[in-house]
Amino acid sequence: MTPELLPTLRSTAECRQQADAALEFMHELYPICRSITGDGVRRTLAAVGAHIPLEIHEVPSGTQVFDWEVPKEWNVREAWLADAQGRRVLDFRNHTLHVMSYSLPVDAVMSLEELQPHLHSLPEHPDWIPYRTSYYREDWGLCVSHRVRESLVPGQYRVRIDSTLAPGSLTYGEFLHRGQSEQEVLLFTHVCHPSLCNDNLTGIAVAAALAAGLRAGQARLSYRVVFAPGTIGSITWLARNEQRLGALRCGLVLGLLGDRGPLTYKRSRRGDTEIDRIASLVLRQQARAHQLVDFSPYGYDERQFCSPGFNLAVGRLTRSANNAYPEYHTSADNFAVVDADCLAESLQVCAAILRTIDGNCTYVNLSPKCEPRLGKRGLYRATGGAHPAEFEHALLWVLNQSDGGYSLAAIAERSGLPFATIAQAADALLQAGLLAATETQDVRQRDT
Amino acid sequence: MTPELLPTLRSTAECRQQADAALEFMHELYPICRSITGDGVRRTLAAVGAHIPLEIHEVPSGTQVFDWEVPKEWNVREAWLADAQGRRVLDFRNHTLHVMSYSLPVDAVMSLEELQPHLHSLPEHPDWIPYRTSYYREDWGLCVSHRVRESLVPGQYRVRIDSTLAPGSLTYGEFLHRGQSEQEVLLFTHVCHPSLCNDNLTGIAVAAALAAGLRAGQARLSYRVVFAPGTIGSITWLARNEQRLGALRCGLVLGLLGDRGPLTYKRSRRGDTEIDRIASLVLRQQARAHQLVDFSPYGYDERQFCSPGFNLAVGRLTRSANNAYPEYHTSADNFAVVDADCLAESLQVCAAILRTIDGNCTYVNLSPKCEPRLGKRGLYRATGGAHPAEFEHALLWVLNQSDGGYSLAAIAERSGLPFATIAQAADALLQAGLLAATETQDVRQRDT
Amino acid sequence: MTPELLPTLRSTAECRQQADAALEFMHELYPICRSITGDGVRRTLAAVGAHIPLEIHEVPSGTQVFDWEVPKEWNVREAWLADAQGRRVLDFRNHTLHVMSYSLPVDAVMSLEELQPHLHSLPEHPDWIPYRTSYYREDWGLCVSHRVRESLVPGQYRVRIDSTLAPGSLTYGEFLHRGQSEQEVLLFTHVCHPSLCNDNLTGIAVAAALAAGLRAGQARLSYRVVFAPGTIGSITWLARNEQRLGALRCGLVLGLLGDRGPLTYKRSRRGDTEIDRIASLVLRQQARAHQLVDFSPYGYDERQFCSPGFNLAVGRLTRSANNAYPEYHTSADNFAVVDADCLAESLQVCAAILRTIDGNCTYVNLSPKCEPRLGKRGLYRATGGAHPAEFEHALLWVLNQSDGGYSLAAIAERSGLPFATIAQAADALLQAGLLAATETQDVRQRDT
Repeated sequence: MTPELLPTLRSTAECRQQADAALEFMHELYPICRSITGDGVRRTLAAVGAHIPLEIHEVPSGTQVFDWEVPKEWNVREAWLADAQGRRVLDFRNHTLHVMSYSLPVDAVMSLEELQPHLHSLPEHPDWIPYRTSYYREDWGLCVSHRVRESLVPGQYRVRIDSTLAPGSLTYGEFLHRGQSEQEVLLFTHVCHPSLCNDNLTGIAVAAALAAGLRAGQARLSYRVVFAPGTIGSITWLARNEQRLGALRCGLVLGLLGDRGPLTYKRSRRGDTEIDRIASLVLRQQARAHQLVDFSPYGYDERQFCSPGFNLAVGRLTRSANNAYPEYHTSADNFAVVDADCLAESLQVCAAILRTIDGNCTYVNLSPKCEPRLGKRGLYRATGGAHPAEFEHALLWVLNQSDGGYSLAAIAERSGLPFATIAQAADALLQAGLLAATETQDVRQRDT
Repeated sequence: MTPELLPTLRSTAECRQQADAALEFMHELYPICRSITGDGVRRTLAAVGAHIPLEIHEVPSGTQVFDWEVPKEWNVREAWLADAQGRRVLDFRNHTLHVMSYSLPVDAVMSLEELQPHLHSLPEHPDWIPYRTSYYREDWGLCVSHRVRESLVPGQYRVRIDSTLAPGSLTYGEFLHRGQSEQEVLLFTHVCHPSLCNDNLTGIAVAAALAAGLRAGQARLSYRVVFAPGTIGSITWLARNEQRLGALRCGLVLGLLGDRGPLTYKRSRRGDTEIDRIASLVLRQQARAHQLVDFSPYGYDERQFCSPGFNLAVGRLTRSANNAYPEYHTSADNFAVVDADCLAESLQVCAAILRTIDGNCTYVNLSPKCEPRLGKRGLYRATGGAHPAEFEHALLWVLNQSDGGYSLAAIAERSGLPFATIAQAADALLQAGLLAATETQDVRQRDT
Repeated sequence: MTPELLPTLRSTAECRQQADAALEFMHELYPICRSITGDGVRRTLAAVGAHIPLEIHEVPSGTQVFDWEVPKEWNVREAWLADAQGRRVLDFRNHTLHVMSYSLPVDAVMSLEELQPHLHSLPEHPDWIPYRTSYYREDWGLCVSHRVRESLVPGQYRVRIDSTLAPGSLTYGEFLHRGQSEQEVLLFTHVCHPSLCNDNLTGIAVAAALAAGLRAGQARLSYRVVFAPGTIGSITWLARNEQRLGALRCGLVLGLLGDRGPLTYKRSRRGDTEIDRIASLVLRQQARAHQLVDFSPYGYDERQFCSPGFNLAVGRLTRSANNAYPEYHTSADNFAVVDADCLAESLQVCAAILRTIDGNCTYVNLSPKCEPRLGKRGLYRATGGAHPAEFEHALLWVLNQSDGGYSLAAIAERSGLPFATIAQAADALLQAGLLAATETQDVRQRDT
């Protein structure tokens, strides 16, 4: 019998209510200056931890993680540029994007000409501040709207970036909801972007809401939600959890879940795993609009989970993809980009995907030669000749396909019936003693 | 050398003549009240047996057949409803559908209100009598046009159903035409429907005509035609023949073959077996219009043959599918639904399918390195430079593909040439000593 | 590091220049009367040998080659038809097509009626002379425009064909360019057609230009270009090289490369081999228009390479296919059919296909767990946040897919990036120590 998962994230109304709460949470997180390390991440995880139990991990700078090492920790207190008259041309206090992430400290007076190589702006979007990082090359930079940059007159400018780049640690947080099985479903979202709204405060808020929702129900599988910096965070997590990956049944990288684009599922490298099948099934049956895209090694942390040495059953769910909307990685990725109904739909579809994974058992029909007599078990209408109902069709589909080779999701796919109806039919047949669970549900499975 | 199969069901004219005879036979069978057991089935099989040798099997009530048991035998002599004035409101003598199949005997006077739960009608088709059954719940019922039902005035009614439901037997008939090989092709048609014309007097008549046609020719394979009640009949047949299923090469469930819909082939559960390939090939090349539909566990006796414990290479051929025409399972499924030309086309396509199965050998090219020289064997035109004819193309295709992995049907499919031309080319190459038959044609084969 | 192959056949301008030279060469070859044996083939190969080193093979008449034997050698010195007044109605000196190939010698006077069975013409194209052969049935014939044939008045005619059909040999030529590996790529073109321009002087000229181009560069694989008569030539070559076929990695039959039709690649019998993938990839990315057609056992020498006993990874590249343009196998297949730009495109695409085959290595990522850090190896831009360039995408694709199962061509296909960019990325990663070549590149491989 499938336990009820995410009971509070079922109806559109419930999800819209959660989306409003998520938006409120995002307003709280927006001003924080996050990077791949540092206090911004810690404050963000603390805020998440106010809603769900979160285990915080600190990994020291210099720790070897596969081909990489954990970088020095970066923190910034203030950053500004002032003209010869001492007027602040830009100030980090106004927008966290003004300082290039991982900028070295600087306090100097220089000519506009000397300053220019350190300025970043977007001529094609003169009012937007770009988002720039320099994690692995020691440098400093200021990001500025092109309009402001153009207004700068020749002369002397004072630049001050009060930052530190020093041994410290990389911080990530983990939420775990234990189910009946040791097998885990992974949700991963990146927490390293500063004041950018769709990318990726929506991902953080949706992951937190799903974690909170999981606590309210019963689960067959276990669910791990990881909040970590992008790239180096997933690499670090994989390095520290390599021995446990056998228990990872499938996973989903979450991000960019609030914009008005259609929900977009990006397939795992294998392309035909359980999460690929289920995401496609749920999106087809429940999303207002959606697109499925093939794996490519460019994007977010699916790159690491799907590197050839792991090749995990991990896909990615976003609305617009990275690089696929004009405001991406600029100050214009603010609350105007995010729509509450879209955020609610993202939550609802995520919940449905998790619910489907949790219920995706594989059975064997214990009466496989001819159909068993459903009528004598109270599962079939007594008077023949008229059309059977959808539930009776679902019973027949589950019986016919349950030879140990087809999961319930595969049966839903082949039959075209809703997964919930198929799962309900399987429960009824299980109770009637006509099905047995296969052991394959307890091993890492390739649902192909 | 392929023997000639079904020589009298080749041309459109011959098939039309057989269709006329089939229609006449259906008129003879129409008045009989058939059910899943009883004298109606026996009389039907006796009528079939007047045309072809039929082995009759009687299986006692109570016999365990997998999850089912053979039910009690049901017979009905008279059934009527009379109003307070003694006027017969309906009478089984006018239409066999008036009595719900497997109705218990009843002889009682009751009010209209008490009567209503036992009446079945179709508000959306007020002039049609529905077809209802209650095989496995003891009950009684009368089926009536909605117009008549609406005309009933409150008052007392006398109901009389003179039926018996008692230990007896389930009856089915088998025709067998032995060919050179023990491997069998199965045709199955249900014989349990009372006065319904398309479903399934057409199936009975077509199956009988094919059996008669088979007697006129030589066959490589053996052909078994089973006339049995639906569901419990195929379950019973499977239970009694389980040990012999290894010899079943493929099969076809036949029914609903006279209406004006396009010929519809429903694939086996496996979906890629020899019968699936051949039905598709023949329909594409010979039917006026056709559709191919995937397997689903709802329909006729293919449900049992394709249950996961058997998973046989059995498909289904109908014109309209079950439930797919308005007159289905009502008194309107009468001779007006059946068209002689459609019935003739069904016969012609069935014959072509059997002929293709019978000729579907798999060969190995005995001169597989480069093309053999056909000219010196008189198989190729002498003067080069001009276009080769279709037969020469067929020779090249058979030689090129015959590596033991492709049957002649597969070669016809890949080449786009008619199966008959491919088979003719194979015969010529066999005679020239360029091909050898593989042993795989004598084992149960998955033609995938 | 991929060596540079065919460096002089890269740009459109270079290929156009080579096409002009090829056309000039075709003018030299056009008057020669070629057949499947004889001095016409020898003169043709001698002309090819003036441009590239060619090893000439003579195989004696009567040599058994699989199911065939090498035929007698045929040569013709003169052939004409004269009317009663001694006027030459047709003369071989005017067109080599006038005499049916392999005509027996004849010197006789006969009536028009007696002559007619020996005349070949095309009523539907009254000005064209057809191409006819009688290699394996001893006969004689004259080919003539239908207009001339119609003008013949009853009366006596003198026919003279001064030919010899006698023991001799079949002649073919081979060019070999040795690369680093013993594995060979085969190019095959037929040299047996008399004065026909597209079929197949273009094939001969393109194959010769490719051979000349190969000499100018470095190759990883070895390249063998075979110039031989059609059918009996490839059969003879296969019979004499059977033991060496294990080294044949893939191949391409070339012909009909100058007409204005789109480039047409015909897949190998297997349909999914390395050459099939690469030809499709190159045509998609580089041809102005193209079509891909499935294998069929009718056409040119691919029939022998793809016979079931060999089933080699050999496809065919033409522009129009055999039989697919009206002038095919007639005197109208002259220089008017051939377009220099089309010939140049054929050369350019052939060169790109060979270059792709030569560079089609398969690697394993030596840092397969998560992405390796490209930045510290100078392979990645330092400042994050903006769009990566195509080359960086190519690096990520090669790393992600290189698990030993995907060749660079497969990666180009999946990524949609140009093969050259993928190969360049692989070279950079190889130099950075991030890739290792797999051994599979040194064995005969099925790139599926």
